[in-house]
Amino acid sequence: MTTTPELEPLPDGTLEKLRQVSTSTIATQLYKRGFRQPQMLGVRPFSTVADGFVAEAFTMRFIPAREDVNTLDPYRSGNTLQWDAFESVPPGHALIVDSYGDTRAASGGDMLMTRAWKRGVAGVVTDGGLRDGHVLSQLPFPTYAAAVTITTRAAWHHVADLQVPIGCAGVAVYPGDVIVADRDGVLVVPRAIAGEIADPSLEQEQLEAFVATKIAAGEPLAGNYPPGDKIKAEYQASLGESSTA
Amino acid sequence: MTTTPELEPLPDGTLEKLRQVSTSTIATQLYKRGFRQPQMLGVRPFSTVADGFVAEAFTMRFIPAREDVNTLDPYRSGNTLQWDAFESVPPGHALIVDSYGDTRAASGGDMLMTRAWKRGVAGVVTDGGLRDGHVLSQLPFPTYAAAVTITTRAAWHHVADLQVPIGCAGVAVYPGDVIVADRDGVLVVPRAIAGEIADPSLEQEQLEAFVATKIAAGEPLAGNYPPGDKIKAEYQASLGESSTA
Amino acid sequence: MTTTPELEPLPDGTLEKLRQVSTSTIATQLYKRGFRQPQMLGVRPFSTVADGFVAEAFTMRFIPAREDVNTLDPYRSGNTLQWDAFESVPPGHALIVDSYGDTRAASGGDMLMTRAWKRGVAGVVTDGGLRDGHVLSQLPFPTYAAAVTITTRAAWHHVADLQVPIGCAGVAVYPGDVIVADRDGVLVVPRAIAGEIADPSLEQEQLEAFVATKIAAGEPLAGNYPPGDKIKAEYQASLGESSTA
Amino acid sequence: MTTTPELEPLPDGTLEKLRQVSTSTIATQLYKRGFRQPQMLGVRPFSTVADGFVAEAFTMRFIPAREDVNTLDPYRSGNTLQWDAFESVPPGHALIVDSYGDTRAASGGDMLMTRAWKRGVAGVVTDGGLRDGHVLSQLPFPTYAAAVTITTRAAWHHVADLQVPIGCAGVAVYPGDVIVADRDGVLVVPRAIAGEIADPSLEQEQLEAFVATKIAAGEPLAGNYPPGDKIKAEYQASLGESSTA
Amino acid sequence: MTTTPELEPLPDGTLEKLRQVSTSTIATQLYKRGFRQPQMLGVRPFSTVADGFVAEAFTMRFIPAREDVNTLDPYRSGNTLQWDAFESVPPGHALIVDSYGDTRAASGGDMLMTRAWKRGVAGVVTDGGLRDGHVLSQLPFPTYAAAVTITTRAAWHHVADLQVPIGCAGVAVYPGDVIVADRDGVLVVPRAIAGEIADPSLEQEQLEAFVATKIAAGEPLAGNYPPGDKIKAEYQASLGESSTA
Amino acid sequence: MTTTPELEPLPDGTLEKLRQVSTSTIATQLYKRGFRQPQMLGVRPFSTVADGFVAEAFTMRFIPAREDVNTLDPYRSGNTLQWDAFESVPPGHALIVDSYGDTRAASGGDMLMTRAWKRGVAGVVTDGGLRDGHVLSQLPFPTYAAAVTITTRAAWHHVADLQVPIGCAGVAVYPGDVIVADRDGVLVVPRAIAGEIADPSLEQEQLEAFVATKIAAGEPLAGNYPPGDKIKAEYQASLGESSTA
Repeated sequence: MTTTPELEPLPDGTLEKLRQVSTSTIATQLYKRGFRQPQMLGVRPFSTVADGFVAEAFTMRFIPAREDVNTLDPYRSGNTLQWDAFESVPPGHALIVDSYGDTRAASGGDMLMTRAWKRGVAGVVTDGGLRDGHVLSQLPFPTYAAAVTITTRAAWHHVADLQVPIGCAGVAVYPGDVIVADRDGVLVVPRAIAGEIADPSLEQEQLEAFVATKIAAGEPLAGNYPPGDKIKAEYQASLGESSTA
Repeated sequence: MTTTPELEPLPDGTLEKLRQVSTSTIATQLYKRGFRQPQMLGVRPFSTVADGFVAEAFTMRFIPAREDVNTLDPYRSGNTLQWDAFESVPPGHALIVDSYGDTRAASGGDMLMTRAWKRGVAGVVTDGGLRDGHVLSQLPFPTYAAAVTITTRAAWHHVADLQVPIGCAGVAVYPGDVIVADRDGVLVVPRAIAGEIADPSLEQEQLEAFVATKIAAGEPLAGNYPPGDKIKAEYQASLGESSTA
Repeated sequence: MTTTPELEPLPDGTLEKLRQVSTSTIATQLYKRGFRQPQMLGVRPFSTVADGFVAEAFTMRFIPAREDVNTLDPYRSGNTLQWDAFESVPPGHALIVDSYGDTRAASGGDMLMTRAWKRGVAGVVTDGGLRDGHVLSQLPFPTYAAAVTITTRAAWHHVADLQVPIGCAGVAVYPGDVIVADRDGVLVVPRAIAGEIADPSLEQEQLEAFVATKIAAGEPLAGNYPPGDKIKAEYQASLGESSTA
Repeated sequence: MTTTPELEPLPDGTLEKLRQVSTSTIATQLYKRGFRQPQMLGVRPFSTVADGFVAEAFTMRFIPAREDVNTLDPYRSGNTLQWDAFESVPPGHALIVDSYGDTRAASGGDMLMTRAWKRGVAGVVTDGGLRDGHVLSQLPFPTYAAAVTITTRAAWHHVADLQVPIGCAGVAVYPGDVIVADRDGVLVVPRAIAGEIADPSLEQEQLEAFVATKIAAGEPLAGNYPPGDKIKAEYQASLGESSTA
Repeated sequence: MTTTPELEPLPDGTLEKLRQVSTSTIATQLYKRGFRQPQMLGVRPFSTVADGFVAEAFTMRFIPAREDVNTLDPYRSGNTLQWDAFESVPPGHALIVDSYGDTRAASGGDMLMTRAWKRGVAGVVTDGGLRDGHVLSQLPFPTYAAAVTITTRAAWHHVADLQVPIGCAGVAVYPGDVIVADRDGVLVVPRAIAGEIADPSLEQEQLEAFVATKIAAGEPLAGNYPPGDKIKAEYQASLGESSTA
Repeated sequence: MTTTPELEPLPDGTLEKLRQVSTSTIATQLYKRGFRQPQMLGVRPFSTVADGFVAEAFTMRFIPAREDVNTLDPYRSGNTLQWDAFESVPPGHALIVDSYGDTRAASGGDMLMTRAWKRGVAGVVTDGGLRDGHVLSQLPFPTYAAAVTITTRAAWHHVADLQVPIGCAGVAVYPGDVIVADRDGVLVVPRAIAGEIADPSLEQEQLEAFVATKIAAGEPLAGNYPPGDKIKAEYQASLGESSTA
């Protein structure tokens, strides 16, 4: 188990601001800064109750199981890193699991997810599968995976590492990166850029909410989306009004 | 942008009749005429509110983006065909987007879909992804795609053409073809055959609804499904009754 | 059509016990006995009303259609094995269809599923597609497939055999194997082992339900999951109480 | 093991004629008669010494292995159908193996292929893998597969049947169908049509050989390919000359 | 058929310089300018005789065939764009075919390729399949494709357009782009940047050839690869020597 | 960079014995001991000159690149672990690269491979791509990969770790495992079992070589393959003869 790196704290309010923003808006802000693919493609929300989360990443890395290492009694094979992970993710952080896209075995199930929830973990994400999908759909705890997989973890997965840089569904995740997850899916925001994009993301989100009312009222795209100077001014004016009110 | 071809009008009542028929029935009618694969495989409905649509196709074609053409400010790169498309699809027609099956970036999102809805467009279909999936699930406007994709369109897609023949999820779509979409998925009915199949499709649909009551009542398949002469006669008689009634 | 083999009856109560157990628990019990992959990966429940089933398997095998064998009038081509299957699956048994993972055409639709339901069949599973997905979602009859496919069966599938050993979604299924399906998916329990695992599965299920109350109450994983001697004793004591009460 | 069906003999000279024709020409002849996909896609020749074969199909069907059936001593598990197959394919026939496209384990290796060669078998084809690929590349015996796979057969495959209709790489194969394999790959010619296409195939092959000399000499496609009346007449004249000579 | 756009001529010597450079070197030069993926992944050389080519792109676009458009007599269905393409690619240019990655039918065969060769076409590339692979392997004409496919083109492909922007194996190709193909595969160089990279590419190629002699002689990577100042100076000196000599 | 673990030395002669054995034989020996999938599926030899290798594994792990970490000047981004790896693999060991099956960028090229060869490295294996495939095909140094990829490594890959447990093409590789590679592909032999299987593997190889002469001479499979007591005795006798001679 690798020691968690010391990280610079995130600028004040970063997570709070990002919690008010949709993943779509953040993807656009990242694209403008040169990040082409922040989304974990194919990873979908399991909970129908929880909305998502914004949290720092705590990582776990899987490799394929092997018959000499992963014996038929998984609990006694000594590979207990997975339990360690669920007890050591700091409250408020999210556990991100690199299952190398292999959904043949579950990367976890309801017992571990309930424990994470109770410990105040923000959420769990994997590019593999999760078992007990029906239970997880009702749990007020955000979980994301590529498939419902019933098969037990040790059949195909070995837990190799905690808190190392990983790939998850094609996206690099470094411990401490900011993970943004909502009902559409999961994005990775590089830690060094999270503070920088928080304000512009929130501004874009609010401006587009204003624009959306125009489009929903039947106005054309031209001038409204993407927003032109006129609607931007109108939006600014509306802010004055509402703050005055 | 290619000029939309002049097309023969569809026989009167074609779309109205097809609107009363399930995609399954139409697939069977097409198969009998030699069309083996009318379905866009892997394309699923996003709206949980809208039932589907029957409409003529207006096509849009994507190709991969490239760094010299699709710059980091997509709105100012000059590739504004997508906005043109959403403002020029005739009301009552459907926009069908050839995303060459690439779901790495969204082929559109809630703002464009809302605009299409407000303009009276029948629906939007793509073999790529759509962002804002959660919003689209609540929109009373039928959208169909292969995935929820958050990543912004310009990251991986360039809009190349409007109103040219395309492939979408493995099926050829010519401008003016009749697209039939319901809660199960999307079919392409070649324009030249739409009129011909409208009546037989409606008849099969109604006969099978009658048969379904028999099967649901516990009768065997033999003689009923596929329908034999006896049940056909019984069905015809029932029509007489109901028209008399 | 192959003759169904004579099979030893299952030990009394096997199916009843397994009906009280989740697929996850059974997967673990199978893994402990050396079975690594009992799950039909990618096969998901269609019915939102039915919970699943536990039943003996009746198998059907598809191969690719060919233009000389599967003519444009499928009902009259003489390949009526599919209808035979739906009328001959014994009530209480489940029909498992090897569609060789090909979802280009439906492996069945609502009429056949309704007939199976009315005949008392336990459920239908395929690694191909099923049409009329929206109807099936409302049917109080458990159906499982890899996709909603509208295209008619005869376009791409020929029915080759009944009651032979098959592969379905990567798992071998022999006629008479015990199929366990719930809201998470489908497992195959080899017939010879079904009796042996019924009691331990039920015990594990009940113990874990007890453990789950602890985890949900905020207790740590250590000692509880996997269950240690102390919680096992506590669980045994609780059984005494409830049986005394 | 199913009994091999009694089949009508092929018209005299069918196989001999087809042996003089490329797979491309035969694919075209089949297409003209409505057969869209006769090729086993993804199946490639392993032998660099043998040219291919034209022969009747003897089929073998695999399903996934399972730990209770396919034990760690494969030779003593009683599943000896594979050995039976290699000793019972009639000389001059070809063994076609349905490995359901699974290349995780070999469907056979050099010892079995050598035995087939020595017995006068025409060739072996599978949509799975073959081990000992380097040896097979040098063997004067045509073998075709989707991959070189080293892993032993019993790890993932069970031999279920001989001489039943199968699918192989997406194409139906019935015992007795005519398999045509050359350095480009493998086609299935339905038995009932083999005699009918033999002469037209040979004629097309010879005409196109004549046309090819024109194209290679720099003549344009127009009139030559597809061949027009003038070049057909010229070809006919050339036949007269050569038969006179 | 779209009119070929008027293009600025390429800077003098661009193609000649690029012909002396490997695709690897050009990929590196493109990456330094922000182009992440210039390679057509999965497209491989068929000819074992020809080395490759550097040429301007002439594009052809396929869409899926449909039974009403692509009838069983392909030559008479009126879809003769493919023949037009092979007769109208300017000598010295390369034909690049967007087969939307579908290898179920051939995108062409030996007759068309021979005609292209005789007309002085530089080469043919597709992300689909080519038939007559064995013949093409011996032809002194560079062809590239994703698979050997025997099945006739009209079974699955319709030719939709010439000289429009296309995607080929995931890379955008605009008419007039510079295609660089060697024994490793195919790259697309955007036309606007071809001139700019020609000199640096050639310099890198020559410097690395010099470096390669050092590495092959047993020198370490450090200082040599990537080349440091010392070896660059040594290389410059060697140029002086050889130009003096 | 993780410190290489201290490992027990392999039993004397282990590697020497395994060098006389084909991968097929070793796969069978592993299967008998419960290892179902030792092969790196899809990884193929590039060198047409080198036969393969048997060596201890030195591992390297890749994750996806990201625009903030992997800048356009890869050599100066500070991610120099790849160069370190090629200079620090002990002579006689093999470098095994976990590219998480992503072939979009090369995992290395001819310069690094030449350096490895000169340093006495046994071979290089990756489940990604290698550039300069044509050069590598002629190099007397065994390289194995899933594809020829021209695109430069830093475009899609970041080098994360050396000498940690990895997955490569679906198989776990721990530093010090024994990698066996020949013209058919690559196997992983767990270090703890390498000594145990060396003698039985060599014996099986030699016995089967003897059996192969029988099969090649036209003898049946029965009694010979798998070898029965009689041929085993005959083989033992032949050993006596040759040792006496």
